[in-house]
Amino acid sequence: MADPSPKPVPLLKDELDIVIPTIRNLDFLEMWRPFFEQYHLIIVQDGDPNKIIKVPEGFDYELYNRNDINRILGPKANCISFKDSACRCFGYMVSKKKYIYTIDDDCFVAKDPSGKDINALEQHIKNLLSPATPFFFNTLYDPYREGADFVRGYPFSLREGAPTAVSHGLWLNIPDYDAPTQLVKPRERNTRYVDAVLTIPKGTLFPMCGMNLAFDRELIGPAMYFGLMGDGQPIGRYDDMWAGWCVKVICDHLGLGVKTGLPYIWHSKASNPFVNLKKEYKGIFWQEEIIPFFQSATLPKDCTSVQKCYIELSKQVKEKLGAVDPYFNKLADAMVTWIEAWDELNNNTSEQTSSKQANGAAK
Amino acid sequence: MADPSPKPVPLLKDELDIVIPTIRNLDFLEMWRPFFEQYHLIIVQDGDPNKIIKVPEGFDYELYNRNDINRILGPKANCISFKDSACRCFGYMVSKKKYIYTIDDDCFVAKDPSGKDINALEQHIKNLLSPATPFFFNTLYDPYREGADFVRGYPFSLREGAPTAVSHGLWLNIPDYDAPTQLVKPRERNTRYVDAVLTIPKGTLFPMCGMNLAFDRELIGPAMYFGLMGDGQPIGRYDDMWAGWCVKVICDHLGLGVKTGLPYIWHSKASNPFVNLKKEYKGIFWQEEIIPFFQSATLPKDCTSVQKCYIELSKQVKEKLGAVDPYFNKLADAMVTWIEAWDELNNNTSEQTSSKQANGAAK
Repeated sequence: MADPSPKPVPLLKDELDIVIPTIRNLDFLEMWRPFFEQYHLIIVQDGDPNKIIKVPEGFDYELYNRNDINRILGPKANCISFKDSACRCFGYMVSKKKYIYTIDDDCFVAKDPSGKDINALEQHIKNLLSPATPFFFNTLYDPYREGADFVRGYPFSLREGAPTAVSHGLWLNIPDYDAPTQLVKPRERNTRYVDAVLTIPKGTLFPMCGMNLAFDRELIGPAMYFGLMGDGQPIGRYDDMWAGWCVKVICDHLGLGVKTGLPYIWHSKASNPFVNLKKEYKGIFWQEEIIPFFQSATLPKDCTSVQKCYIELSKQVKEKLGAVDPYFNKLADAMVTWIEAWDELNNNTSEQTSSKQANGAAK
Repeated sequence: MADPSPKPVPLLKDELDIVIPTIRNLDFLEMWRPFFEQYHLIIVQDGDPNKIIKVPEGFDYELYNRNDINRILGPKANCISFKDSACRCFGYMVSKKKYIYTIDDDCFVAKDPSGKDINALEQHIKNLLSPATPFFFNTLYDPYREGADFVRGYPFSLREGAPTAVSHGLWLNIPDYDAPTQLVKPRERNTRYVDAVLTIPKGTLFPMCGMNLAFDRELIGPAMYFGLMGDGQPIGRYDDMWAGWCVKVICDHLGLGVKTGLPYIWHSKASNPFVNLKKEYKGIFWQEEIIPFFQSATLPKDCTSVQKCYIELSKQVKEKLGAVDPYFNKLADAMVTWIEAWDELNNNTSEQTSSKQANGAAK
């Protein structure tokens, strides 16, 4: 008897991990099944490690709770946030793949204007596998997309582009607003589908959201640290922002590209603006000093690896932001710990064990 | 008897001129009638001044041919290109209005995805009247648009934005490609409607196309010089690019914003790629040196007006680009002449006369 017709193998099936931070059962994966089923998932369980997180049948996953993180990292586990989705970056560290896609568990499959389900992961992979254009702006957006190209006046020497390190996707329905904007515009929904991917130019910072984000771990992984947030920290909801600022400065220094735009996911539920305000309010002050710091940060020429760049940046954070609040001294130390832990796990060929191993019914 | 119901007065009716460079009858205006009829047109006739250009009935216009330009500017007329659409910048100089919209005569009304005619001018005016965001990137595009806002992580101190000096619109159908791209992709058409307006970040250059362009003459007019192109010059089709590079460097210095994206026009006809190649080929070489020059150009603090910035830039052009080709010495001198002519016409309250005066049947 012949095999039933096999499913087509999706792009980068064995080179990409999907990282999901969560505190609840992962029913949201049902909707993503057609797109995620053949990939490996890394689930980072936040909060109470004794809680059992249910993962729908048929997904291939490993799951880490706080006990696993403490066991694997030992004293260095203090660089991984607790009771905050910043814990997701632990998943980036334990992955052995070249690419990471991370998504929040309140994000569903969006539809394009024709009504078709958007395969967000496939679009992220396209973004990552095609070059970026950080050195000059192309007015017709992504020049590598079918039906598009570089416009008149675009220097030919720049048309090879730069390697893409990050693909930042967007959100339909609930936009990623801060607490003050949520409070002022409780009913605002994002209904506009902008059919574009663009490179954020060199020298320009952007607010990187971790909800729907993909990156090349080999190119930029060690800079994707989501900082110290949540339990015991004076701040929350700046984990992805912090990573975005560091990543962009390092990508600019190393000549790597950061894209934003497509794909959209459907963000189902606004988080509580009052809770958010409490988490954010220090960040709202601090970012007024943090952003000029990152805008003017420069890295010396001998910073030729992401790790070297990141350690250098941690020194500058301590030196320049330490005066803003002692928190930044602690954060700068955690940045160093993160790199040490990253190198330990990633120069070490022995596999890490997780509390639950792949059950992979689809395999 | 009551008046027939009057047409609604369009935005900035008495504060905006539409500048059209042409060598032919302006039949294309018929299609634009609903949107342009109530505005004043400045037509700059290129080529043979004895040719009669027909303008459809009912438009309010003034028309300048080469004889007019020579008469009005005297010896300074040599800064205005001949046999090249670069001559359009003469229209910017003689306008007395705060805003300019310039459009090519092979550009027609495009349709949005719902099939509705796009009022390009209205969108440009919206772009110019709302602030720009050159200092930080907003991932949901124009934050001032209805239904949009600044996303989480956007510094509050930057949410007032910067005044918008330029609105750069795009093209459906024939994209604005250089000759090599036209030759390689003769059948490529732009069919993608990207529903976005975005600010080009500070420090980033872009290829500014003059086909569908609006600007605030008071904020940036004296920098909108389209250079020396066409008759007697070694280069063509770089008029708008030159203006764009100068404008962007000066906008960045003065804290002004440049937007690109909506509105689209329908670009009807590709120009001849062989002719274009002849015009462009020196520019294709030269831009490899011009762009790094503009990318690293800085203006001193005492350059507090557009004129001062532009004169300073002309000095740097002579100093740094003179070595690329003697053409740049000539261009640098023409930049100075342009500013002298601009100031003469614009500090002088007496109105300039044109060879044909407004016939304004719509008035």
